[in-house]
Amino acid sequence: MTEAAPKNTARPSAEIRAAISDLVAEYAYLIDANRLEEWLNLFAQDCDYKVVTRENVEQNLPNVMIWCDNWEMLRDRVDSYRYVNEYNLHWDRHVVGPLRFGDQVGDLWHIEASYLLAQTTLEGASSLFSAGIYEFGIRVTDNRAQFVSVRVIADTGLVPTLLATPI
Amino acid sequence: MTEAAPKNTARPSAEIRAAISDLVAEYAYLIDANRLEEWLNLFAQDCDYKVVTRENVEQNLPNVMIWCDNWEMLRDRVDSYRYVNEYNLHWDRHVVGPLRFGDQVGDLWHIEASYLLAQTTLEGASSLFSAGIYEFGIRVTDNRAQFVSVRVIADTGLVPTLLATPI
Amino acid sequence: MTEAAPKNTARPSAEIRAAISDLVAEYAYLIDANRLEEWLNLFAQDCDYKVVTRENVEQNLPNVMIWCDNWEMLRDRVDSYRYVNEYNLHWDRHVVGPLRFGDQVGDLWHIEASYLLAQTTLEGASSLFSAGIYEFGIRVTDNRAQFVSVRVIADTGLVPTLLATPI
Repeated sequence: MTEAAPKNTARPSAEIRAAISDLVAEYAYLIDANRLEEWLNLFAQDCDYKVVTRENVEQNLPNVMIWCDNWEMLRDRVDSYRYVNEYNLHWDRHVVGPLRFGDQVGDLWHIEASYLLAQTTLEGASSLFSAGIYEFGIRVTDNRAQFVSVRVIADTGLVPTLLATPI
Repeated sequence: MTEAAPKNTARPSAEIRAAISDLVAEYAYLIDANRLEEWLNLFAQDCDYKVVTRENVEQNLPNVMIWCDNWEMLRDRVDSYRYVNEYNLHWDRHVVGPLRFGDQVGDLWHIEASYLLAQTTLEGASSLFSAGIYEFGIRVTDNRAQFVSVRVIADTGLVPTLLATPI
Repeated sequence: MTEAAPKNTARPSAEIRAAISDLVAEYAYLIDANRLEEWLNLFAQDCDYKVVTRENVEQNLPNVMIWCDNWEMLRDRVDSYRYVNEYNLHWDRHVVGPLRFGDQVGDLWHIEASYLLAQTTLEGASSLFSAGIYEFGIRVTDNRAQFVSVRVIADTGLVPTLLATPI
């Protein structure tokens, strides 16, 4: 989103709220269901997906934990997870909080939402794995919503297995 | 839901969304408030309530942790909790994520929602007790919503006190 | 809310639901972003903000952990946090569950919502800090929403650092 673009402070319609809420629910659902190939379909071709830490954001440091600046890179990441690298097996469970509707620029909405992510090991231990906030850029056209940008700001980066599945 | 029934892929109206969201909020609220007798009233007479583990679902195994296949059984379960068995006393706190609106068959909606359940002991220690997902079958008639089926898929079954209060 | 006032059991309109949901999202967001001065602006002048424990509520005991019975007191509390007292530094992350719309008295809505609050230390450890429920009194006029009362009922009070940031 460029700062120069005109901002519309109109509140989102019920239809737009519903479309965006459904997209966010689907995002979390598909990761948790390990249906990452379908999760990819929620993103636009020109998407940007990034995982950063709060510390780096607040200190304006450039480091990122994951960064895919288009859809093909994001697909490669999923392929890598599926076929190339070995990670610790686990089950994810996201719970996302209420949506914060921010600026609208054209058909692009800026949305924030907190999340808690629990992971369960194959041995059956559930624990809090990551807490943080999503910054979503979501394009809504004809009430179809799609992710243009996702920035995950994790409250901590001190998680050895962070790079396995997306957050 | 029988697979043969015609599916309607129309999106839910704002009224139906609100009715379903309110029902789910009430479900969690009444368990957490230990008002289980009122919680029972959210269910249809022909309801089915089941708690299973993710492992069993993914491996298509038949084991269940709790299964009540009609309202009277569900009431018996609450009665048993209240009057018969002794469980560890605790306080529940559910936080449910955004609703995922699935298929509609007639007036029956298929909804999924992730949950995190924290428990607090009488000594005052709060911890994550269960993470998982709800699969709800919710009947909405005249904007009144009722549970026809609830399947709780817990990410792990390794919880000694799981069978006390409903999830 | 006085018991004698006439209660309206009408369900909230989509506009009122949206206004209230946005206010609650903003509440959590601004605390987590450490923008407490802006958080203050969500409250009415005649507001009442209170943190109590579930044990005290259930036993009808008068003890409170934090109580500010007007806006100036609440501002003092934030000032104290900012400039006077030293607390352990940490990052908050709230996830709030679905809203439970209760009684409406005039333009005042009674809302409940469960929360989980994770904290992350500067060393990078995230953990569940508090679980509980909000009881909000929210005034909605011309679709602008404002907190008139907030009662945070924490499931446990056994948290040494509870009094630093608001919950």
